[in-house]
Amino acid sequence: MDAEILAVGTELLLGNIVNTNAQYLANELALLGINVLHQSVVGDNEARLVEALKLALSRSDIVITTGGLGPTGDDITRETIAKVLGRKLVRDEHSMEVIRDYFARSGRKMGPSNEKQAMLPEGCIVLQNDWGTAPGCVVEQDGKSVIMLPGPPREMAPLFRERVKPYLAKFSDGVIASINLREFGLPESTVQELLGDLMAGANPTLSPYAKEGEVQLRVTAKAATEDEALAICRPVAEETKKRLGNAYYGEDVDSMQQVVVQALRERQKKIALAESCTGGLTAARITEIPGSSDVFECGIVSYANRVKQALLDVRAKTLKDYGAVSEQTAVQMAEGVRVRAQADFGVGITGIAGPGGGTEEKPVGLVYVAVSDGKDCYVRRLLLGHSNSERAHIRYLSSSNALDMARRLILGLPQPEDAVRVEPPKLQVPNSFFGN
Amino acid sequence: MDAEILAVGTELLLGNIVNTNAQYLANELALLGINVLHQSVVGDNEARLVEALKLALSRSDIVITTGGLGPTGDDITRETIAKVLGRKLVRDEHSMEVIRDYFARSGRKMGPSNEKQAMLPEGCIVLQNDWGTAPGCVVEQDGKSVIMLPGPPREMAPLFRERVKPYLAKFSDGVIASINLREFGLPESTVQELLGDLMAGANPTLSPYAKEGEVQLRVTAKAATEDEALAICRPVAEETKKRLGNAYYGEDVDSMQQVVVQALRERQKKIALAESCTGGLTAARITEIPGSSDVFECGIVSYANRVKQALLDVRAKTLKDYGAVSEQTAVQMAEGVRVRAQADFGVGITGIAGPGGGTEEKPVGLVYVAVSDGKDCYVRRLLLGHSNSERAHIRYLSSSNALDMARRLILGLPQPEDAVRVEPPKLQVPNSFFGN
Repeated sequence: MDAEILAVGTELLLGNIVNTNAQYLANELALLGINVLHQSVVGDNEARLVEALKLALSRSDIVITTGGLGPTGDDITRETIAKVLGRKLVRDEHSMEVIRDYFARSGRKMGPSNEKQAMLPEGCIVLQNDWGTAPGCVVEQDGKSVIMLPGPPREMAPLFRERVKPYLAKFSDGVIASINLREFGLPESTVQELLGDLMAGANPTLSPYAKEGEVQLRVTAKAATEDEALAICRPVAEETKKRLGNAYYGEDVDSMQQVVVQALRERQKKIALAESCTGGLTAARITEIPGSSDVFECGIVSYANRVKQALLDVRAKTLKDYGAVSEQTAVQMAEGVRVRAQADFGVGITGIAGPGGGTEEKPVGLVYVAVSDGKDCYVRRLLLGHSNSERAHIRYLSSSNALDMARRLILGLPQPEDAVRVEPPKLQVPNSFFGN
Repeated sequence: MDAEILAVGTELLLGNIVNTNAQYLANELALLGINVLHQSVVGDNEARLVEALKLALSRSDIVITTGGLGPTGDDITRETIAKVLGRKLVRDEHSMEVIRDYFARSGRKMGPSNEKQAMLPEGCIVLQNDWGTAPGCVVEQDGKSVIMLPGPPREMAPLFRERVKPYLAKFSDGVIASINLREFGLPESTVQELLGDLMAGANPTLSPYAKEGEVQLRVTAKAATEDEALAICRPVAEETKKRLGNAYYGEDVDSMQQVVVQALRERQKKIALAESCTGGLTAARITEIPGSSDVFECGIVSYANRVKQALLDVRAKTLKDYGAVSEQTAVQMAEGVRVRAQADFGVGITGIAGPGGGTEEKPVGLVYVAVSDGKDCYVRRLLLGHSNSERAHIRYLSSSNALDMARRLILGLPQPEDAVRVEPPKLQVPNSFFGN
């Protein structure tokens, strides 16, 4: 069973927006055991949409379109698909009701153009949209299925999940299941060397993909049932973890911050953050995890030196002698925020994110990351700058490295080889923010 | 002159990664006046890549491929394209040098598989890659150009900008220029109603695209020169701004935070942030702007009530009587952080980002955002939850609304209609973090 994804929208061809829908759908279809061999994008242009649709129908069993179901004159997907399939558009009264309800609930006015959204190809299966105004639909013809979904991801994704997935279940013969493994810190080429032989396998397959300093590894197998497929994946997954060692950080997790939050929750411990060059990014990553309030009470974005001194107890002499971007400052930030926020673990990040501000001695991309639990304190000096590296990339990698060091400290794992252990500094004013 | 973008990579078909390259290239090509009528994706599969390439060459003058130039056995783009075009692969000695240099500079070991990356189609124009190991190249044949670029965006984008753009200049007849306008706060349908007549124009065109609570508007015209094209855009751009009123926030800017930072810099003013439900996201957005250290010294992520009390001087009685998610708490957070960080403007954000934790009275998505300059203090009660809204979305919109209110306060513009003006609360302990 082959599917293909056809996105319709001039805004995609102009590069105004990124086609995240294709990624979402491809991922979901893969998990259903439905192959996606093609993705394509055409504009809001009838001739080219007709051509693309015919090509898709000639080579795929299922064609999923996204976009072009809106209320404006540009939106021609419904009409064009109906034409190609030789169907009339008829008004679906139930969809009309749902659209009216949607506007009523969100307290907005319904325009006459929204009525057009209830016009659907005759004989289609209507996919009720409870997340927006454009219903989706499925047209079955000549053993093929054309599935139309709206373009906005916040409507498309729930509509797929709640309406299309149950519909597609009937097409799945055999199931693909995957185990996703995450590692942080090893370069892609090292991962390749460590796992090359496993990557040569066929069922399961092991595929790496590099992303923002991480290599994600997906073990995938096909079998009659999900359990069988997972059982085929398991030995390769375990061997992969073994070979990755402490760089491996999680199975079927979304992010390193999720692992950090979970490790803290399981131990009922708390973390506090002091961020300079990352400017709150690490706090934002931790707090994106639901339930992080149990383990995270306080983050200080200490861009200015006086904030580092006043709130984190970084010593004036340290700033003078070593500078704000130094091992010593990072360590004092980590331990300062830990003690003063009465947390179990403290993290300090200070560096030069650029684009300006670097010197020969302290170039753009120089970042110090420290973690402390009051007994052990580790600091790393990172060089994250390349000839053309960007501020956002340096900041993201800085926060990832901080999360990685925190993860290792919380879990009692060794730090990366280049981490230096130092004595946690004593605070000058060791009382907490809370006066006790 | 028509171009098309052909991404090669099974990881795209499996939905492991998002095809951001297509968006980047489409946008760049549009600005060069080169039409992109098709984008497509195929896997690392020779037969389908051959087929996709032949189709692309049959309908487009320029075919740009991304991906499949890596060192592994999966990477078959070079070989396959050479085969379709009837060229041999020959080793490019200069590329070999560059790859060796790249490894030397980044202190990593070069594997034998990297040598494969210097094998390029005979007679091609080599595009030297200073940002990674895979050189790009252009093969010209039968009046068409096939341009191969590596897949990682951090290599692809600079390679395009520095090497491909100069190459493509010769194909541009006429120039497309755009003016990008940003607004925040008006629903898409309202923007449609306000600007519908302008959107019907042909040269310039006015295209809206909605994104995370904003509608971005692009005015685009084609003319002989960039200046002429811009002159055609200008009246429609100005009329658009006028109609959007204070919801309009910037021309050719990347983000609201950029406007906020610039407004502060121009006035030599500083801002301080107190964030609860956004957990540092607003600070991270502000500090992503280079030079933000001039205007931003301090952010407090006050997830816990005791942090709100100790660092922001939120009153215990307020938390008890009204709760942490209340107008009163937001206002005290904004003014508390402003006074204690000795900033000109203070922002306070408190709310329920979910997924759990909502009640009938205070549902998920209820967020209070306050801004204060010590004289004027405004607070808004936002309901950002829908039946299926997500934590990330609620957090992002909360921070966007905070930035919007800050922008208006800094620029002396009226706040949104539903903002309530309150007296800035007096701090119980009005001394600053810095003890003066």
